[in-house]
Amino acid sequence: MTPALAQTSAGKAPAPPSYRHLPANADTVRWGCFSTTLTPRVEIDSAGIVTIETLPHPAADDLERMVQGDEGAESVYLWTTDRKGVDRRGAGSTDPAVCKVGSADGRGVHILTGPVHGWGAKPGDVLELRILDCVPRPGANPDFAGKSFGSNAASWWGCHYNDMPGGAKREVITIYRVDATGDKSRAKAVCNFRWGPQTDPFRVTRPTIDYPGGPIDHALTDFTFNVLKGIRIPIRPHFGTLGVAPAEADFVDSVPPSHTRGNVDKWPIGKGAIMYSPVSVEGALVSVGDPHASQGDSELCGTAIECSLAGTFQSILHKKADLAGTPLQEMDRPMLETRVEWVVHGFSGPNHLGALGATAQADIYGKPSVDDAMRDAFAKMRRFLMTTKGLTEDDAHSPMSVGVDFGITPVADGNWGVHAIVPCHRAMPS
Amino acid sequence: MTPALAQTSAGKAPAPPSYRHLPANADTVRWGCFSTTLTPRVEIDSAGIVTIETLPHPAADDLERMVQGDEGAESVYLWTTDRKGVDRRGAGSTDPAVCKVGSADGRGVHILTGPVHGWGAKPGDVLELRILDCVPRPGANPDFAGKSFGSNAASWWGCHYNDMPGGAKREVITIYRVDATGDKSRAKAVCNFRWGPQTDPFRVTRPTIDYPGGPIDHALTDFTFNVLKGIRIPIRPHFGTLGVAPAEADFVDSVPPSHTRGNVDKWPIGKGAIMYSPVSVEGALVSVGDPHASQGDSELCGTAIECSLAGTFQSILHKKADLAGTPLQEMDRPMLETRVEWVVHGFSGPNHLGALGATAQADIYGKPSVDDAMRDAFAKMRRFLMTTKGLTEDDAHSPMSVGVDFGITPVADGNWGVHAIVPCHRAMPS
Repeated sequence: MTPALAQTSAGKAPAPPSYRHLPANADTVRWGCFSTTLTPRVEIDSAGIVTIETLPHPAADDLERMVQGDEGAESVYLWTTDRKGVDRRGAGSTDPAVCKVGSADGRGVHILTGPVHGWGAKPGDVLELRILDCVPRPGANPDFAGKSFGSNAASWWGCHYNDMPGGAKREVITIYRVDATGDKSRAKAVCNFRWGPQTDPFRVTRPTIDYPGGPIDHALTDFTFNVLKGIRIPIRPHFGTLGVAPAEADFVDSVPPSHTRGNVDKWPIGKGAIMYSPVSVEGALVSVGDPHASQGDSELCGTAIECSLAGTFQSILHKKADLAGTPLQEMDRPMLETRVEWVVHGFSGPNHLGALGATAQADIYGKPSVDDAMRDAFAKMRRFLMTTKGLTEDDAHSPMSVGVDFGITPVADGNWGVHAIVPCHRAMPS
Repeated sequence: MTPALAQTSAGKAPAPPSYRHLPANADTVRWGCFSTTLTPRVEIDSAGIVTIETLPHPAADDLERMVQGDEGAESVYLWTTDRKGVDRRGAGSTDPAVCKVGSADGRGVHILTGPVHGWGAKPGDVLELRILDCVPRPGANPDFAGKSFGSNAASWWGCHYNDMPGGAKREVITIYRVDATGDKSRAKAVCNFRWGPQTDPFRVTRPTIDYPGGPIDHALTDFTFNVLKGIRIPIRPHFGTLGVAPAEADFVDSVPPSHTRGNVDKWPIGKGAIMYSPVSVEGALVSVGDPHASQGDSELCGTAIECSLAGTFQSILHKKADLAGTPLQEMDRPMLETRVEWVVHGFSGPNHLGALGATAQADIYGKPSVDDAMRDAFAKMRRFLMTTKGLTEDDAHSPMSVGVDFGITPVADGNWGVHAIVPCHRAMPS
């Protein structure tokens, strides 16, 4: 500790920030939705730090490597003929005829930890959430000490699915090994297998992947080892889903991202990143999940390397009354800041919950478009440049063309995304 | 020269590679097209090195800073009531009713230097073109010694044009100053002005920007200085247009990129980059132009910082007979390699010249779609991974989702683009 930090003007050491730890288990997670109706799992004061554990939704693809020995994960993935560890509100059938219109029933898939209530947040404030750390959680099975594992599905909701050479559609799951000691920054494939119809413990048979949490029947599945030889994937631990609860509906499907962030699936949302979100409800109700060891921009085939992570968060709250005249004054959308760039997110439906009415949560799946997301991203970046740099709209167009990069965020989440990147150490500061 | 390079086994110094210099002037450039009918401006042997000067097509936006004193540029931009320095085949009206269907007449806008004939290239070979250097050319006006200048137009063909706040459409040109000494890597705006109807020396009045090369009438134009205060654009010198001549038509509009590359408008195509292109005609007929001091991925508003550059190139030719079993065996599309990544380019129309028939060059402007370009990019990346790493198609899907980034290339060039990036120091090598 430096002398400057060791003493206050009164000669007393300042109180350290409070610290809380939120494990991932059947009492702290739920499946597939943000909701204002949930009881907060932890309360954080204005300067508090919290470590949150997260679990990947497809861990049952390899219970031996991804669940076994981890008491919290075992409590979540428990599923026998007469009992499920966690009731799965948001992970039922994806058939629109079965889903309850206007709710998240049957659609969301992610395991989300939380919600966290705190920071004195009120609707209209802006929550600046800093990710102090983000690391793979080692598995608890002693057979794989020091390793973490993740699952990737090339699935029916992937962008590739309707463009298979030869036309035969199938889903393939790949299990990856991830070093959890921090020494190596590569993931390697362990094996893969083709999804065949799987019958869950409640005796429901599922021809395609539509309901995470069901264990793979090893007797009916052919595993291929020694796959993806010579290919190492650089790991980029990050949270695919991280957001505050939207006020627009009681239960909000976790899959499509929106103005309160949620499932943005952007790989820089890891250690060192800062997430800005408009607060929609009292206490913000932050939830975290969909942990990824790595993904590429687009998450093309439907999922990332879905792998358990632990994240440590601190927040700075920007009160509504103090926003005028600051770059946050029009923060009605999520924004990401890293050490070297600002990232503004555009979507096919910028606020589908608000714009599409009672059937928004079903309708958004019918409007996937990179073109629409591109238009939203550039309109938001234009406003960002106008607000933060005091530019006219005409002045803002030129820097967007010559100094802002546009990339593709998710094309697998119903609400497709394009992000606009402006280098904050280069183009922006005076 | 190191001892190892100084002597051959016979004790003789190897002959240095031949070197040629191709300046940019009225004899070495043309407007707006690739063409198999052009007489080569320089011949390069198999190991030869060539430096090629390039000029930006909108230099007449600021003749004082971008042309004056540069004898070559003055010869190109010469335009009086009875004489043009370079006849402008590819830069006439953009009205489809006026354009000659099936040709490049009236559409292409770039000033292209070349073609370069050489390397013993034949149709079916793959040309690996290495950019040894790429630097801004200093202006020749002593009033601005050591500086180079570029022009950026937020134009009617930009992605933003139909989404103006308030709806009033207008075009704005911004002039940037670029350091040409290499000491500074930032561009700063000098001034901007709104495009008003401009009457060219042949007394044709143009309400919008549709015909580069016409000088701005200063008496009728309001220039605003001290614009974009506090904004510095990181420079990324690169060639927006660089390609071989396609065999599909006699004259090919330079604006839409295609399988022979052309106007890909991707900013890493600068110093250190390597471009792979399928050779379509005898001698390859490489042309270079559309020099950019900087642009962002998407070139959103229609143009980059269009600024004169000089590039130095060397080539390795891969003969058709030697391609089988190598990563280049199916190289029917352009690919870019940088020090850290491979970039595979997808387009709305992957080979519009071949696919769209006699009216291809007009029709491609009616099909701009990021969604279509995304599909093309992922299909090409899948094939790239299958070819270079010996993967099955199912094995190739997973790395695309977890280790390949997809970004937006140009959305202002008729044939829109998405590029797929795979890190070659990380995911790919074994």
